[in-house]
Amino acid sequence: MGEERPDSKGAVGEKGLAHAGRSVRSEDRDASDVAQIFGFHSVEAALRAPRRKLIRLYATQAAATRLAGEAAARGIETVVLANEEISRRAPREAVHQGVLLEARPLAPIDLSELPDRGLVIVLDQVTDPQNVGAILRTGAAFAVDALVTTERHSPQFSGALAKSASGGLEHVPICSVVNLARALQELGDRGYLRVGLDSEGPQTLEALSLSRPIALALGAEGRGLRRLTRENCDVLARLEMPGPIKSLNVSNACAVALTIVDSKLRAAGH
Amino acid sequence: MGEERPDSKGAVGEKGLAHAGRSVRSEDRDASDVAQIFGFHSVEAALRAPRRKLIRLYATQAAATRLAGEAAARGIETVVLANEEISRRAPREAVHQGVLLEARPLAPIDLSELPDRGLVIVLDQVTDPQNVGAILRTGAAFAVDALVTTERHSPQFSGALAKSASGGLEHVPICSVVNLARALQELGDRGYLRVGLDSEGPQTLEALSLSRPIALALGAEGRGLRRLTRENCDVLARLEMPGPIKSLNVSNACAVALTIVDSKLRAAGH
Repeated sequence: MGEERPDSKGAVGEKGLAHAGRSVRSEDRDASDVAQIFGFHSVEAALRAPRRKLIRLYATQAAATRLAGEAAARGIETVVLANEEISRRAPREAVHQGVLLEARPLAPIDLSELPDRGLVIVLDQVTDPQNVGAILRTGAAFAVDALVTTERHSPQFSGALAKSASGGLEHVPICSVVNLARALQELGDRGYLRVGLDSEGPQTLEALSLSRPIALALGAEGRGLRRLTRENCDVLARLEMPGPIKSLNVSNACAVALTIVDSKLRAAGH
Repeated sequence: MGEERPDSKGAVGEKGLAHAGRSVRSEDRDASDVAQIFGFHSVEAALRAPRRKLIRLYATQAAATRLAGEAAARGIETVVLANEEISRRAPREAVHQGVLLEARPLAPIDLSELPDRGLVIVLDQVTDPQNVGAILRTGAAFAVDALVTTERHSPQFSGALAKSASGGLEHVPICSVVNLARALQELGDRGYLRVGLDSEGPQTLEALSLSRPIALALGAEGRGLRRLTRENCDVLARLEMPGPIKSLNVSNACAVALTIVDSKLRAAGH
């Protein structure tokens, strides 16, 4: 799927700009600095998110009308196009629902900016954009403070991921790190309880005594957490599964884990 | 995505049979009666599931070796092929990991076969195969007794769905009904507590008093439960979400709900 760096087929950035009937500013030329966000709910959430810097909106007449209030509030230029024109600009096979927003990628945050009593998700090389998108959406629902992920072996935070996040990207800051083991060490120094989800973990997540701040680490399906990641967790915990299948889709595993963590933190008065 | 009815490009059933070097039995000719299951874990689970009737296995030499025990135990013919030959037989873009199993679709079960003290998931026109697959996988992990779904507006229970279910299809019987409202009435007559998940529900799922048997109904994202479905639930409940996003991906919502239900049932000694 095409994402922040449209390929030659798409050439989304420049073509879009030419059609917009205005001069191409030099900052717009750098396609790597343009995030494409599509799908009605994702675009609506981006328009409403003050953290998100906007470039312009492509929309069908119907979608432009529905989003007119949000677009006006942000002072963003709306280019009304036929649905198939939007399909040409969007990543191939994108389910854009008649809206395509060009925006700046959200500024990543630094580890030092994480709150002192935060709840953060740490992803160890989870690469599937739909799963990471669903994790961001569920993370936003559980008021997670950030998603910590590796610069390499992570999907781009736009396109299909933004669609699947359905607005979650606007609420959960991303903290991209070069070295995940070192990031976990830093989190430990800051007092974070680092819980690694591991189907072979000696304890169940439910049995743990939890209090903020917490970093919940999940690995890719199949591979799980890497050795250095496991070694930099305070505790490895498994999800207690009564049924014949013990491993979940990673976004579902994250949803189960956040439900348990949230419930335990609330019970403990956090 | 190609599923039980391979299109002309795939022509999976007959071509595969010809290569298998045996006569084409008339029952094999009906491609609609052949489920293609691919991906290592899904195929492995299918080979180990006594409920699943098998036709034959296509595998690379490496995969055939890994699955030799399971294949021998079931007495299934294994056709060793190059990886690209398997790609040609599999649905387009299928991540088959060198294994493609032709099998009979699992026999659906009837409502009357549901256990008296069961926990079942009811899906109201959830059509996305990846989400329904993830729901089956998570349902299997939570020992759900069945998935009740409508005959129409449901994905086919093979192909991409089976891959995403990662074995869940072998453990969770499917109960396909023509009329979901009537099915909910029947479940009510049998004593099932019918809980509809609805973001506008007057109570939270956590606040409910729950005991088996339970039917947990989920609707498609965006549309939610249809009116007649809602009217045939005993209670509509929402998930309590502390964060700024209130709606989850449907498989994530199901995972959160099952975590809560499972925890409450265990606390109540069920």
